[in-house]
Amino acid sequence: MSIARSRSVTISDVAQTAGVSRAAVSKVIRNAYGVSPAMRVRVEAAIAELGYRPSVAARALRGSSYRLALEIPWVGARFMTQIVEGAQLAVDGTPYQLVLAPAEGHAYGTLESMADGMVDGIIAIAPLTDPEWLEAFAARVPVVMIGRHDHPRGYDTVVGDDVGGANAVMDHLLGLGHRRIVHLTEPETVTAPGSGTPHSVRLQVYRDRMATAGLSDLVEVVRRDDSRAGTLAATRELLARDDRPTAIFAGHDDIAMDALAGVAAAGLTGRVAVTGYDDTDLAQHPLIDLTSVDQQGVEMGARAATMLLERLQGRTEPRRHVATATLRVRGSSGRVVS
Amino acid sequence: MSIARSRSVTISDVAQTAGVSRAAVSKVIRNAYGVSPAMRVRVEAAIAELGYRPSVAARALRGSSYRLALEIPWVGARFMTQIVEGAQLAVDGTPYQLVLAPAEGHAYGTLESMADGMVDGIIAIAPLTDPEWLEAFAARVPVVMIGRHDHPRGYDTVVGDDVGGANAVMDHLLGLGHRRIVHLTEPETVTAPGSGTPHSVRLQVYRDRMATAGLSDLVEVVRRDDSRAGTLAATRELLARDDRPTAIFAGHDDIAMDALAGVAAAGLTGRVAVTGYDDTDLAQHPLIDLTSVDQQGVEMGARAATMLLERLQGRTEPRRHVATATLRVRGSSGRVVS
Repeated sequence: MSIARSRSVTISDVAQTAGVSRAAVSKVIRNAYGVSPAMRVRVEAAIAELGYRPSVAARALRGSSYRLALEIPWVGARFMTQIVEGAQLAVDGTPYQLVLAPAEGHAYGTLESMADGMVDGIIAIAPLTDPEWLEAFAARVPVVMIGRHDHPRGYDTVVGDDVGGANAVMDHLLGLGHRRIVHLTEPETVTAPGSGTPHSVRLQVYRDRMATAGLSDLVEVVRRDDSRAGTLAATRELLARDDRPTAIFAGHDDIAMDALAGVAAAGLTGRVAVTGYDDTDLAQHPLIDLTSVDQQGVEMGARAATMLLERLQGRTEPRRHVATATLRVRGSSGRVVS
Repeated sequence: MSIARSRSVTISDVAQTAGVSRAAVSKVIRNAYGVSPAMRVRVEAAIAELGYRPSVAARALRGSSYRLALEIPWVGARFMTQIVEGAQLAVDGTPYQLVLAPAEGHAYGTLESMADGMVDGIIAIAPLTDPEWLEAFAARVPVVMIGRHDHPRGYDTVVGDDVGGANAVMDHLLGLGHRRIVHLTEPETVTAPGSGTPHSVRLQVYRDRMATAGLSDLVEVVRRDDSRAGTLAATRELLARDDRPTAIFAGHDDIAMDALAGVAAAGLTGRVAVTGYDDTDLAQHPLIDLTSVDQQGVEMGARAATMLLERLQGRTEPRRHVATATLRVRGSSGRVVS
């Protein structure tokens, strides 16, 4: 439907809707100098409203930089290493150079900076970015988003099967007899119900499965404050209680690492089950030996880059790839120790 | 001396030496379109020969992108997380956006791509890049290099005290009574004697200290093949021998992690000492508890970014910062177990 629409919409339609000249629309599309912020907003709103897609030829007018950007929330997150490795593999052998853009806080500024003539296309991990803003943005530059559960019109998505992965974790822990299962996850902003972020989906599955198992009274969600020290302190506090949890379902492996450190500091290694998510290289290390969900991060990165290259070759209809999630059971999660 | 020289050299001198027009020199400096590779090589050779420094004003003609690039050999290397974190801290609050450029193989192509109008300045970790090439490159765009022991004229350097750090490791291991100490390091290319790379310096200190301790016969350098599986296999092979080492001095923490995995796989955890380098977050984790050298990676990244910002404000004389190296002794390295 959006395809049919975009075929019939011309640059003149956009100019008319925005109440500006065709040249002004063209300037916005080409990211030319001399466009006021107010003008850009008006034109982008018209582009989004009409579902206009600048042709590949129009984009080519800008000239090609042969660079692709991968925007990432934090370079220290170990899952990012998988994504970057996969994207690099897909880009190797093409004329494109991959650059990484760490976002400070919200990704808007970073994404704008990348689109400003620096790169030909953008892969982004920006779970909180407004969908409508992204639709307008994707009309200016080819975009592939990683880790969003929405169904966009103007860009592609690569996302893990967070429902399947979180259910596999809960199957495993409940099957081992755990009842006091704590979910240790990211701050509120990244886990807001209905936001469609991977962490909000994992959290919802945790709640649902606890309820189905008749354990609603034992539901406990602990949000870390995004610092290692904070996670460690939260874990130690949990473990100091008389009714301490017997299992910690961590939102991802980096959180699980901090939880394992907290368990070790409390002298409880092997007595509290810990599970992670992402199956990073650390989970596989024999001294860590962390049960985790493999969501094929390398494959996700490679898919995203391949999709972006397809868009650069002219594809405009949106594609969506859901990566399978597989639980890797290791030594960190055993039966309940009384 | 190079400053005095650069003051007297003009764009006309460069044009004359290169045998081209002043306009052609200007084009090369501005990275304008329509410059042939042959022309660029001739002009850059003349620039390097004469020690010419394009003025800040000339660079400003290009227009500012307000982006800084940090070129890194491999994004998965955990030491890089420290460098990136530091650089980001220094850039926060300035109008600049930091982008990361992973290099594929040699860094030349990546550096050229960054300089091609994408960024205003470059921080790079490129131990093998030719110094003369770098001097010419730094005449076109402000450059700060991390992890090089050379003394350049046209760019800044931030480097760790590899002599001090490696000596601290050897003091520690020899002091514990170890004699069969193996040095597990990077491939030959990155450790070639006299190359001035951090790993070549650490290797030389290892050899010197073994010789001074009368242990020349026991010198053993194992080079990993740059893969995790290769390091693991090499470690297991070492440990299967009758005269197996009692200590492994790993070139950096990522290598040490693989060595620890090999020790664990051989059932020898706690019976073979392992030391790393860089004091990454993993070394500090209680389940890893790795003795390592803290060379203040965050501070190194911050210093490099600050130096680059100074260059963008007009400083041209080269600066050099040597980060102190401090051994952090932890549980991974004990006395010889017979």
